[in-house]
Amino acid sequence: MLAVNATQFDLVHNVLSLTVAAMGAAAVFFFLQRSEVVPKYRIVVTLAGIVPMIACYNYYWLLNSWDSSFINVNGVIKATSHVYNEAYRYSDWLLTVPILLINLVLVIDLPKRQAQARCFVLGLMAAQMILLGYPGLTATDPATRWLWWGASMVPFGIILFQLYVSLAEAVRLQPEGVRHLVVAARFLTVVVWCTYPIIYLLPMFGLNGTSTFIVTQIAYAVADITAKAMFGILIFMIALRKSYPEGATQAAGTARMRQAA
Amino acid sequence: MLAVNATQFDLVHNVLSLTVAAMGAAAVFFFLQRSEVVPKYRIVVTLAGIVPMIACYNYYWLLNSWDSSFINVNGVIKATSHVYNEAYRYSDWLLTVPILLINLVLVIDLPKRQAQARCFVLGLMAAQMILLGYPGLTATDPATRWLWWGASMVPFGIILFQLYVSLAEAVRLQPEGVRHLVVAARFLTVVVWCTYPIIYLLPMFGLNGTSTFIVTQIAYAVADITAKAMFGILIFMIALRKSYPEGATQAAGTARMRQAA
Repeated sequence: MLAVNATQFDLVHNVLSLTVAAMGAAAVFFFLQRSEVVPKYRIVVTLAGIVPMIACYNYYWLLNSWDSSFINVNGVIKATSHVYNEAYRYSDWLLTVPILLINLVLVIDLPKRQAQARCFVLGLMAAQMILLGYPGLTATDPATRWLWWGASMVPFGIILFQLYVSLAEAVRLQPEGVRHLVVAARFLTVVVWCTYPIIYLLPMFGLNGTSTFIVTQIAYAVADITAKAMFGILIFMIALRKSYPEGATQAAGTARMRQAA
Repeated sequence: MLAVNATQFDLVHNVLSLTVAAMGAAAVFFFLQRSEVVPKYRIVVTLAGIVPMIACYNYYWLLNSWDSSFINVNGVIKATSHVYNEAYRYSDWLLTVPILLINLVLVIDLPKRQAQARCFVLGLMAAQMILLGYPGLTATDPATRWLWWGASMVPFGIILFQLYVSLAEAVRLQPEGVRHLVVAARFLTVVVWCTYPIIYLLPMFGLNGTSTFIVTQIAYAVADITAKAMFGILIFMIALRKSYPEGATQAAGTARMRQAA
């Protein structure tokens, strides 16, 4: 049973609460701004908002579960019989990770058949990756945990291959003004997603204490906000620039400046 | 009285919570994307969103009822006097199943009189099917359960006849680019709906244990997400392609490729 003091309890509570707010804000931002891109790319901005909406819901439950796990008895934090339920993270990822990958394919705007094939493979591999990680979450012996970790690394490898090899040509053919944003979105996805299997491994290196646990909770929050809200902002910027290519907005901007002057 | 351990309790809780999130996400997706089809098909996308919205509400209550059915006493899960109320499923289906069938007819876009007749028959039969299944839910003796199962199979048979015989010609006459999607939506409906009467029969084959119960809860969640959210995505795709037929998008795609070359 995890033992935390009042400061540690509050820290985790506050980080979870901050994440609920950040995700909710991101969702509303994308839902309102979706009308600012051309119709073709609205689905991309809708999905960019759906992801933090789902995360907002799951972080609300995580926060709730955290609060139920402890009771403050005259200033001393005691554990209750409720166990902090981190499976909300998995039920979140099972829905959001496939959507994130599908959204990257959609904003790249491949020919229809290619897009469908990539969406299918990436969506399926993303779901596999999460489902295979889950049994290891509750495992207490390191061998079982390693086994599921290894199993879920297989679809992760396939995802990396798809993103860097199968999509290489499509990324190279992106319009000038957005290519670096697509590269950034792909890079951000890969780098941030690498933090999850690392956090997963920590208990196997004997890092089981309260400090590790708290660092983990903060790392998850930072990774989730980056992979969902920040990634969404990149997707939104790509959709916006593809809607109004450089020349058009530049001209409009100049016209506005002339009017103002 | 059902006995579950902590892992089993959490598993059902997590599956129900995931379903609430998935249904809510699907509803918001369709509500936002309805503006992307031509006015004629907006009602179809609205209804595609109404269905998971109703399911989101009912799964929230199922989750609530599940949590009230057990109490964690020092790590041991004990049943409370509250009985897990699965009737929420029936009150969900009574509203959503007629809407799902009517939506399939609407997206097929029959002549007005034919559409009205099909909507009336399919909506009525769908409601009959659910209402006749309900008395068997609480029945303890197999004979009564079989009786109501058989009774509700009659409207189910009429629905199948309507979908595969009465609508055969209309499906055959669908435009080239959407016919396979309409066939897929009809097939998905029929296959997924067959899981419900199968789950209904399990207790009659002596499958009453905790494992069966948990598998059932997961199967219902998968079936509901497929029959509502995935079905909705097919309906949305049909509405989108009928709004902007192949030629139009193809031409735009070709123009883009020429520009890139």
